[in-house]
Amino acid sequence: MNEKKPLILITNDDGITSNGIRTLVSVAKEFGDVVVVAPDSPQSGMGHAITIGQPLRLHKTPLFENVESWQTSGTPVDCVKLARDKVLSRKPDICLSGINHGANHSINIIYSGTMSAAMEAAIEGIPSAGFSYVDYNFEADVSCCVPIVREVIQKMLETPLPQHTLLNVNIPKVSNEAYKGLKLCRQAYAKWQEEFDERIDPRGEKYYWMTGKFVNMDTEDNTDVEALKEGFASVVPIKFDFTDYEFKKQLATWWQLT
Amino acid sequence: MNEKKPLILITNDDGITSNGIRTLVSVAKEFGDVVVVAPDSPQSGMGHAITIGQPLRLHKTPLFENVESWQTSGTPVDCVKLARDKVLSRKPDICLSGINHGANHSINIIYSGTMSAAMEAAIEGIPSAGFSYVDYNFEADVSCCVPIVREVIQKMLETPLPQHTLLNVNIPKVSNEAYKGLKLCRQAYAKWQEEFDERIDPRGEKYYWMTGKFVNMDTEDNTDVEALKEGFASVVPIKFDFTDYEFKKQLATWWQLT
Repeated sequence: MNEKKPLILITNDDGITSNGIRTLVSVAKEFGDVVVVAPDSPQSGMGHAITIGQPLRLHKTPLFENVESWQTSGTPVDCVKLARDKVLSRKPDICLSGINHGANHSINIIYSGTMSAAMEAAIEGIPSAGFSYVDYNFEADVSCCVPIVREVIQKMLETPLPQHTLLNVNIPKVSNEAYKGLKLCRQAYAKWQEEFDERIDPRGEKYYWMTGKFVNMDTEDNTDVEALKEGFASVVPIKFDFTDYEFKKQLATWWQLT
Repeated sequence: MNEKKPLILITNDDGITSNGIRTLVSVAKEFGDVVVVAPDSPQSGMGHAITIGQPLRLHKTPLFENVESWQTSGTPVDCVKLARDKVLSRKPDICLSGINHGANHSINIIYSGTMSAAMEAAIEGIPSAGFSYVDYNFEADVSCCVPIVREVIQKMLETPLPQHTLLNVNIPKVSNEAYKGLKLCRQAYAKWQEEFDERIDPRGEKYYWMTGKFVNMDTEDNTDVEALKEGFASVVPIKFDFTDYEFKKQLATWWQLT
């Protein structure tokens, strides 16, 4: 492998055969040496799950031209961990995750395997980005994302991004004419309002399917949800220190703690 | 159910039969009406995973005296969602998760099902806390945690905690004499350094067990890891807006974005 080229690790949560990862690989190849380590099956909604109670499989799977690629039985976060310990000979310059089939704006970052993989890379000190296309159709054509993904990768490689930094990039489903460019945003406060669909199985036992509708409860400016509605691709810089420093000050007074 | 008493939702990630949840229920009963919705099997390391590709089971399971309790086939986060939609007739006053068998300080909050369940409650607008005992032995006696859990629940119920607030409480494994009290801390920067243990199965195929050692990379003051070492129970207030506002300002300049 040419040491002068950037080394780019790619993963996702929709699985190694998805349209999204294929498109991401094709763009990333323009910029450096690409290594793919991705789940062998769809892993949406896995969040930051890791596999500790079961063994993992890891197989070399040459799905992409001139790209070393591996599939694993693990979660998206497992993929990043396996890549570091078993696949890569050096720390990659950047890690890219996606392109996810479906939005990962606002609170979705918490449930998303795509974003959790990017966060795991950031914990490892690898600047990273997760890409998501606002279309849940697994067969959606994501080629409209290409120029946006290209722009973000270029900026990431040109900029000395701090370690432990990750970007959450969501791409709107709009025509080229309606697309307004990248916009820096904050994570919207939103939630999923679940309604479990109760059914009866053939043995007469109840079971439940999780369904729900997305509720944006954020009325302030500059959110990713708002930007996407307006036709921007949203970029939210994310950190993994979850300490609420503001509230910590209040709590110190209320509870008289040091 | 008596509407004057606080309603307390309890869940965990070690499963409904664990010592930890039994102890948490026994303390919480002193303060109000308790409802338990917990996984039917251990779910450690599940992070914020939700079950979207498979149906869920939910069964009333009277394991605790005078406490309505349910077991589910889902993740810890599923438990909170099911509790809200299918079990509880009103929003609980607080949600408690744990007591986890093993530390959830520092970066562990990201991988922990216990803390993800507490975070899900906070997303739902229910003030919540996750409790963890720094002893990974599943059969550990957690009764030493009782006074600390009691103190935190009392403070939570006395204080008008903001919605969307959660507390990460870790309890050290020290004698009563060595215990120094509660300490407000920030999340330490730490990571797990994985070393996958490679083995060969009876069919001659490779498989991997995740192992690893915990590395505390934080050299600054006031971390939860440090407090626990000194004999304090650490309390870290946590938020679920992951936006890095400081870095957002830099990025705006570097990339000339609005």
